[in-house]
This record gives sequence, C-alpha cells and structure tokens, in this order.
Amino acid sequence: MNIYDISKKAGVSIATVSRVLNDSPRVSEKTRDKVLSVMEQNSYTPNVYARGLGLGSMNTIGILCADSSDIYLANAVYYLERDLRQHGYSSILCCTGYELESKQNCMKLLLSKRTDAIILVGSTFIEKRAEHNNYILEAGMEVPVMLINGYLEGSNLYCSLCDEHQAVYDVTSRLLNQGFDNPIHLYRALSYSGLQKKEGFLQAISEKGLNPQDRVHECSGDMDDVIDFLDSLYDSGKRFNAIITSNDELAIGAIKFARAKGLRIPEGISIVGHNNSKLARYCEPELTSIDNKLEMICIHTVTTLMRIFDNKNVANKTMFSAELIKRQTTSFN
Amino acid sequence: MNIYDISKKAGVSIATVSRVLNDSPRVSEKTRDKVLSVMEQNSYTPNVYARGLGLGSMNTIGILCADSSDIYLANAVYYLERDLRQHGYSSILCCTGYELESKQNCMKLLLSKRTDAIILVGSTFIEKRAEHNNYILEAGMEVPVMLINGYLEGSNLYCSLCDEHQAVYDVTSRLLNQGFDNPIHLYRALSYSGLQKKEGFLQAISEKGLNPQDRVHECSGDMDDVIDFLDSLYDSGKRFNAIITSNDELAIGAIKFARAKGLRIPEGISIVGHNNSKLARYCEPELTSIDNKLEMICIHTVTTLMRIFDNKNVANKTMFSAELIKRQTTSFN
Repeated sequence: MNIYDISKKAGVSIATVSRVLNDSPRVSEKTRDKVLSVMEQNSYTPNVYARGLGLGSMNTIGILCADSSDIYLANAVYYLERDLRQHGYSSILCCTGYELESKQNCMKLLLSKRTDAIILVGSTFIEKRAEHNNYILEAGMEVPVMLINGYLEGSNLYCSLCDEHQAVYDVTSRLLNQGFDNPIHLYRALSYSGLQKKEGFLQAISEKGLNPQDRVHECSGDMDDVIDFLDSLYDSGKRFNAIITSNDELAIGAIKFARAKGLRIPEGISIVGHNNSKLARYCEPELTSIDNKLEMICIHTVTTLMRIFDNKNVANKTMFSAELIKRQTTSFN
Repeated sequence: MNIYDISKKAGVSIATVSRVLNDSPRVSEKTRDKVLSVMEQNSYTPNVYARGLGLGSMNTIGILCADSSDIYLANAVYYLERDLRQHGYSSILCCTGYELESKQNCMKLLLSKRTDAIILVGSTFIEKRAEHNNYILEAGMEVPVMLINGYLEGSNLYCSLCDEHQAVYDVTSRLLNQGFDNPIHLYRALSYSGLQKKEGFLQAISEKGLNPQDRVHECSGDMDDVIDFLDSLYDSGKRFNAIITSNDELAIGAIKFARAKGLRIPEGISIVGHNNSKLARYCEPELTSIDNKLEMICIHTVTTLMRIFDNKNVANKTMFSAELIKRQTTSFN
C-alpha cells in the first residue's frame, strides 16, 4: 500500500494525498477527512519519514538536476522528494546548470556529503561523447545511480524512462492521417530525450513520403523568441498546418503566434505540446499534450531504489508508455 | 561588476546572461557573442565558480524551501543557485513540505552537512507561534541565516523582502478610484507574505468605507478548484467587478471563470495577479500582475551573504518596492 494506492481508493490525485500528508493548507477539510479515513481503513502509516531522521544516521539521497526553474525538472524533483520522504529518506539537491564541468563538480559535492544514492533528473545528463559520462559510471561504483528519463548502460545504473519516440511518432502519424499534411517540429535542445522526440517525428513523416527538409527547427529562448521565430518562418513564405513541440512552453508560443496571425486552431492549424504540464490548461485554447508519465517514473524510481536497499531484484531499465491528453488545439476523436 | 551590470550593459535579461555563463543551448550565437564581448570589455571573469570547487574545501550553502513545484519558490531557488555559483559557492537544497517537524529535521540535516550558511526561501518558514521559530534562531548561532521574503528578528538573521502590503494596497486603491468598486481578494494561505497582501487589500477597502465582509476568501487546490469556488460564489448571488489574488495561478483560475461566465475582461471585471511569473503571459487575456522583485531580492541576498563572509557591514532587513506590470486584465493608463 503506497501513496498511489491511497489516491486511487480515495478518488483524489496523488498531489492531494501528498498535501494531506504534508499538512498543507491547500486542501479542504472534507478532502482531508476522506483521505485520512482511507489511510486508516488500510492501516497506512504516513509518518514513516520520522524513521530515518533524528536517529543518528541520516538517510540522505542526492539529486542532481540541471535547472530547477524548468517546470518539468522542478516537478520531477518535487515527486522524488515527496516519495523519498515517505520512505524515510531526506534528499539534497544540486542544480548543475548545463556545463559538464559543473555537473561533475556537483556530483563530487553530493558524494562527499555521503549520500546513499544519486538520482540524475532529466536526459541532459547523458552526454553525446561516451567519455563525458565516465563520472556517472564512476559514481555507480560508490552508490546506486538512478536516471530519470535518460538511458545509459553501466553497473549499478538504473534507468526509468518514457517511450517518447513512439509517442511523437504516434501523434504525428495521427495528424497526417487527419489531413494535417504539412507539419513542423520545434525542439529546445537535442538531449537524449529531445533526440527521441525528433526521430519519432522524422520517422512518421518519412513513412508518408514527406521531405524532412525545413521541418525540424531548434527554438531557443523565451516565449517571445518562439513567436519571433515562427513569425519570421511564416513571413519567409513557409507554410505549415501542424506544430508538434518538445515541450508545452514552445507550444504556448506556437498558440500565441497562430492567434496573432489569425490562423484558426485546430481547424486551420493543430498544435501539440509535450510533458502535459499544468501550463497546458492555462493557455487558450487549452493545449493537447503528450503526458510522459513523469510522476509514475519518479514513483517507480524511488520504489526501485528501496528494493535495491533491501537487496531485492530490480531491472536496469524500465520503459513507460506515454499518453496523449487531448484538449482544444487538436480535433482528434 | 556583477551579472546584473553585465545584463544592463548588454541590453539582455539576467536570465540570458546566466544562460551564456552556463553554456545553455537556449541562447542564440549572436546574443552569446554580444554578452561575451561586454564581459570582456569590462574584465568580468565568469568562471570564478571554479574557485571554491575541487580545491579540498567545498564552499556550500544550504537552501530550505517548502515545495520545489511552486513556481515562485522554484524561481527563487534558481536565482540563488545561479548567483551563488557565480561567487564560487555550491548549494544544496532540501524541500521541507509545510510541516514544522519536517522543516526542523531538514534544517538539522543541512547543518550536519556543514554548510556555510542557510537560506530560507519564502515566508512559510515564519510560524505564527514564536517558539516554533526557535530552530531558526538556533541555526543563527551556528551560521548566517538569510530569509527570502519573510521577516524574523534575531541575531545573525538577515531578511530581504518586498513591500507586498503596499503593493496590494496601491493596486486595490487604483481599481477603486477607477470605478471597480466591488473587489474581492483571493489568497492561498496566510503565511507572513499572504497576511501582508490581505491586510493591504483590507486597508484600501476600509479607506473607501466598504464593508470587508465576504470580500476575502481562502482558495485552495488546483485551477479547477478556483473556478469551482468562484462559480459557487457567483451562483449564490454574490457579485464583484475586481479580483485581486495572492498569486498568478489563482488569477488564471479567475480569468477562466470570467470567460466561462461571459464577463468582459477588463471592462466588466478587472483581474490582478501576484508574482509576475511567466504564467502571466501564457493566459488570454494576458495578466496584469504585481512584480515582487524576486530576482532582485535573491541577488541582494547572495551579495549580502558574501559581504558577511568578508566581515563587512550589512543591514538585517532590506525592503524592496514592488512594481505593477500592466497587461490586458486591467485598464490602467
């Protein structure tokens, strides 16, 4: 019985169960009572976190993430911290930035603080040149190393990820079959995950015999940069009727561009985001987005780590399937 | 010469300078060149962060924050980590949740990791009962303790905050003078900061002789909960023509509510958010929001800490003024 089972039985989100456990003011009295009664009926003891703390030994997990202001990474850190705390572990986080040397230094720092394991959040930690990943392999010789949404082979390395290649392939194919025969793909960076998405897009269009040239674009900076980029693409005469992006923020830029140009969403142009972050519901029209199961991946990672600590068998790689969350920027059934 | 000066001279945002320093893929070649050339002209050495790392002693600052998935707190952590790294310091973060016992345990954990200072992010750390703040005062006996947007008096405690009372008072008064004579205030929680905002609102309406009853509402949960709350308020016959909120997410819920009810924004109803997060530009219409100068507060906090380490004089309390960022949900000049 874990936090996920409680949420299903109580008919509330995991976030709500978590708020109850953390005594957050952001939950109503009624919901709190319902969740607590489900816990009682199922003999669930939430306060196991007192176990590891204050008893001499401090069970501590080190988390590395590139950038805590990225909403996907920030959510991953939140899920991991929450689940680790439920299992009696504290976590300490280092934000590394994107530079290799800084990643290596942060890893050294966390290991020096005698953490029991290391979790790397996000595929920006997987470098293209194999020797640049040596510091990760070396860390695996000291403690278990868990990767969130990235894949690297090595001893004592455990990867949980989402099949984003398949997800982007599927949604692109569906758009093509629906008649949106002129799609483009916007991505932020070609990390391991970014590469999977791009290749999923390219596979779908090549199966339809479309020329891939000028269909895949790197788009950096803030929302205004995305709008500017699409404006200049459009003004140069390029036309497209579907935009598939590698994250929701790019997609919101695409929505703003389309509205400003008077293009009708989704009849004239379909737009698909990625991550299914809460941003997807803030914009107008609300954004269809690929849910890459971040919360499940984080829960699985912590569960796997606990099994490792208990000397139980675990898999080195676990792949989750994504789910398309349909909203108003597409016209799928 | 710091990162802030470089950004002004180069005519780009601090975030962009930071991306250049961190070698982020999210910046164009042209911008990168411009920023690097300004740094060169001003003899700015970005890579001071190599100073503290890898040389035996690890300069490390401990950061406590309640919830890394909160966009305001996540941004604060991002700004702090970035500036500390520029000064040669690593940071390690604990996410505490909202429970006092957990905050105390996380503080103990960070102090046990021999951090050189502690930064508390957000006013949720200031408890109403004085004895509950003792663990913060005790930490101040070991290392400098910096508070972001909260105020507590004590030895070796340094607070940087924004005058949010004044900011909410000002915007409420302006709306009243503009004829939006029936305002309500939505808040998430009555933390130190939440209380300041609420009192600013109440002062403005009482000066206009308005009855405060039924004008101030706690609103917890997700966007749908905010919409449901406003729906039921409206359906119970209550009317209002301005909604002033304690954060941007509440305000986006208010926009969704108003659109669904067919209320015209801003002619029929004005809406004001708080924090001026990037969410304010994702919604439609784009949101007028109070900028509470989080980035300046974080830069100031790190600068102050460095002065403390250098045995220079610093103030125990620094108050910044907020700025109203006008967008489409109000009709101010």
